[in-house]
Amino acid sequence: MQGTLHGVLAPVLTPMNDDLSPATEKWIAFCKQLLADGCTGLAPFGTTSEANSLGLDERMAMLEALVAAGVPAAKLMPGVGMCAIPDTVKLSAQAARLGCGGVLLLPPFYYKGVSDEGIFRAVAEVIERVGDARLKVYVYNIPPIAVVGYSLAVIERLLSAYPATVVGMKDSSGDWAYQKSVFEAFPQFDVFTGSERYLLANLRLGGVGTISAMANVIPDKIRFLYDNYLAANADEVQERLDRFRAATRDYAAIPALKQILATRTGDRGWLTLRPPLTSLDEGATQAMLAKFAAAQ
Amino acid sequence: MQGTLHGVLAPVLTPMNDDLSPATEKWIAFCKQLLADGCTGLAPFGTTSEANSLGLDERMAMLEALVAAGVPAAKLMPGVGMCAIPDTVKLSAQAARLGCGGVLLLPPFYYKGVSDEGIFRAVAEVIERVGDARLKVYVYNIPPIAVVGYSLAVIERLLSAYPATVVGMKDSSGDWAYQKSVFEAFPQFDVFTGSERYLLANLRLGGVGTISAMANVIPDKIRFLYDNYLAANADEVQERLDRFRAATRDYAAIPALKQILATRTGDRGWLTLRPPLTSLDEGATQAMLAKFAAAQ
Repeated sequence: MQGTLHGVLAPVLTPMNDDLSPATEKWIAFCKQLLADGCTGLAPFGTTSEANSLGLDERMAMLEALVAAGVPAAKLMPGVGMCAIPDTVKLSAQAARLGCGGVLLLPPFYYKGVSDEGIFRAVAEVIERVGDARLKVYVYNIPPIAVVGYSLAVIERLLSAYPATVVGMKDSSGDWAYQKSVFEAFPQFDVFTGSERYLLANLRLGGVGTISAMANVIPDKIRFLYDNYLAANADEVQERLDRFRAATRDYAAIPALKQILATRTGDRGWLTLRPPLTSLDEGATQAMLAKFAAAQ
Repeated sequence: MQGTLHGVLAPVLTPMNDDLSPATEKWIAFCKQLLADGCTGLAPFGTTSEANSLGLDERMAMLEALVAAGVPAAKLMPGVGMCAIPDTVKLSAQAARLGCGGVLLLPPFYYKGVSDEGIFRAVAEVIERVGDARLKVYVYNIPPIAVVGYSLAVIERLLSAYPATVVGMKDSSGDWAYQKSVFEAFPQFDVFTGSERYLLANLRLGGVGTISAMANVIPDKIRFLYDNYLAANADEVQERLDRFRAATRDYAAIPALKQILATRTGDRGWLTLRPPLTSLDEGATQAMLAKFAAAQ
């Protein structure tokens, strides 16, 4: 293991106020709850966090508040990848300064069809500009949404150029063959799988755990598998876990997870999403909640 | 026509210094040159401008400097569309305050597969938050790069809700059937075509002109067609114009255009690109320059 983060990290859902501003106090309380409920760490400002719908200033103020509220920075891997290098540098430098365990770095994702050379240079530029030995980078590969991803060739160049800084990745490609190829090519690299569906397979190949949207609603159950992956019945535990994802699979993930939290807590404030995301309609909500309840 | 902008607008290339900072003085001089050479207006911070590689603060400082340097704000349609509403609001409010003729608004482009409802709400939220009657929005449809685009249904809702604010669009879909359907559905809407290749067709259907990357290098020639589109030989003028785009078609557009400017001006500083974009290699450069010279 290269980095200090491992286990079950939640890409923390971001509660919003009615005026769409981030409900920061509620968010901090939720972060603490997730850690109490089984998460070994948190990845605020992931895709599931609607991070890309938050303004640069909002993200910086929230992270500052989270650490000030006593959540250990060492357990945090905030998402920092923006389209533009200066913005990514701002977020990354802040995370390093606060002592975050790592940062989760999307590649620059506006331009499509860019070269490996270009992606390598963009990441290198961020690392050089931050210029802080405390910076630990986890590359974030999520081509289904960002379209732009990290090839093995780019990872190899990054590991070679910045072995003390580029320590791991989150793979949300949904492509197990790709994730397996990363393990084969870079045995020392800290690979988090982006779906708890692959958690057992990830750990068996030497992976370090999962950063999974589902950790927002079933952190204890994912943690149980992480803690018991060597047990004789681990495959059965994975199968039981898979039922929860299967229950939400047919629905947009972020509204579905916010709906589960709203239902569980009785706090309808959880339903608020920032555009362009929208809530599930009533029929979908009831069907999804029934399936999720049946998965317990 | 709903808005005040029409004709030939350049999505202005952004010169960079060796340290990748924007070469603002050179950029301002280039903006003035483009207006002198035939552009009727400018669309700074378009895709071709590498706007999505510029930080939020950089964009705001550059626009402020451009207007302070005497370029009439009324001729400007800066790109303002970011992933997050608060950032888009900042850029849009600044443009409105400075008196820009319009703003070019990408839809929020990180999340994929979002609903029309979500895109409508995102744009509506920006307009409401800016809350400035001077704001004139041109929606920017460029699915080949942003992936997320504007459907006719979204445009219809925007025109109905904000008829005095949403005045037009730039269509860079590359899909003439789509652009034609916009003309048919919204005859009063100000449609700029994103490629001068469709300029004649655009004008014949009642369009207002083009915002074209090629206007960075052949503004006079595009302007000539705009001024003479009713002439008997207009088709022939369009065909002659098409040769320039054909010359660069096989190369990445932004590096190719920067290379043409570097060659023309003898200023190699024009070659600098921000990652993830990269320069053409030597072979491609020579081949492209030869084709471009032959198109004259």
